[in-house]
Amino acid sequence: MMGDTVILLSGGMDSGVLLAWARSRFSRIVCLYFDYGSRHQEKEYAMAQRLATHFGTSLTRIDLPFMNDLFSSSLLTSGPEIPDGPYADDNISSTVVPFRNGIMLSIAVGYAENHDIGNVLIASHSGDHPIYPDCRASFTDAMSKAATEGTSRGIKIEAPFHAMAKEDIAETGRKMGFDFSMTWSCYKGLSLHCGRCATCLERKTALGYDKGLDPTEYEQ
Amino acid sequence: MMGDTVILLSGGMDSGVLLAWARSRFSRIVCLYFDYGSRHQEKEYAMAQRLATHFGTSLTRIDLPFMNDLFSSSLLTSGPEIPDGPYADDNISSTVVPFRNGIMLSIAVGYAENHDIGNVLIASHSGDHPIYPDCRASFTDAMSKAATEGTSRGIKIEAPFHAMAKEDIAETGRKMGFDFSMTWSCYKGLSLHCGRCATCLERKTALGYDKGLDPTEYEQ
Repeated sequence: MMGDTVILLSGGMDSGVLLAWARSRFSRIVCLYFDYGSRHQEKEYAMAQRLATHFGTSLTRIDLPFMNDLFSSSLLTSGPEIPDGPYADDNISSTVVPFRNGIMLSIAVGYAENHDIGNVLIASHSGDHPIYPDCRASFTDAMSKAATEGTSRGIKIEAPFHAMAKEDIAETGRKMGFDFSMTWSCYKGLSLHCGRCATCLERKTALGYDKGLDPTEYEQ
Repeated sequence: MMGDTVILLSGGMDSGVLLAWARSRFSRIVCLYFDYGSRHQEKEYAMAQRLATHFGTSLTRIDLPFMNDLFSSSLLTSGPEIPDGPYADDNISSTVVPFRNGIMLSIAVGYAENHDIGNVLIASHSGDHPIYPDCRASFTDAMSKAATEGTSRGIKIEAPFHAMAKEDIAETGRKMGFDFSMTWSCYKGLSLHCGRCATCLERKTALGYDKGLDPTEYEQ
């Protein structure tokens, strides 16, 4: 048991498995959910609540209304439509929310400092597309240095899955008996996962849809 | 002229002089003002508006309601009273807002990335008390690295006054003919500067109150 930690919990499969992984490693876990105005926000938040309840942790929701007002991205309700198709540069560039992880991590670091917690965890992994520069390990490392320098208790940021592909995270979860139906991926945020957008296609591959291993109910 | 920059403009004397300093160095300046629920917010914002108008720059106000809700600090309207007395550890520790500069800088970096601006300026200086770790040069440097790694255009954060004391900033402003009555320091946010809290005492010293050089009207 390594003490206390804050976890960035989006309700997606990566941060869901991270919470399951951390449950046996930290004595106290505080989950933070950020509402930055994404289209799939209500679906995500419902999953984050289920996950926090299931794993017996607290969950604090932090609203960031300025992101929808000031930033442009198809991921936001203020932006253009989410494109269909695979996880590739030209297709997902519109879904970038600039420096999103930097913003969420810095707020989590302030929260941790205020609540005397020494650690912040994020579920970044090696499969995150290079078009999201704030998912890279080099970013997380630099941000951790900034957190350590900028807080009186020298807070650290860690990305335990940074060397894993999304498939490895799925496998890690499966070994722990993690229930993936407690997570949400689809950027469109309709009643079911659409099954066609980049993040649905990525989820299908990671969870082994073709092998019948994916418990998700898709629209298509 | 070095292109475009974002400036964190609080309406205080340090960021006011920074704006004057940057005016001749950058072709386009976008000022960001953050409302994080401080007691002196309305006074500060009015000054930020005067400064932006005077220097012909845009000013965008970003509200961070979560800081007042989640963080505890005497600087916030949700916290205890601002103490009187000098700028010393035991006296100002209650005014710390955890990782405030980290949070404001990360949002400014996202804003810059979204608006295709390569640079963010902050008015941190060497006189900032060690009790505010996110004012240190080592923090700003690490945060700049995180911004560069975490954005597609490799944004840089700079603190041009990092080696100056507050008196040097006052002198720099005076040489440029900067009008310090366009700035606000007092943490209490009453109609006049109180003249007794740590930040008023610091302002008096920097602006040469004893020598009759300080144009500020103090309550006491």
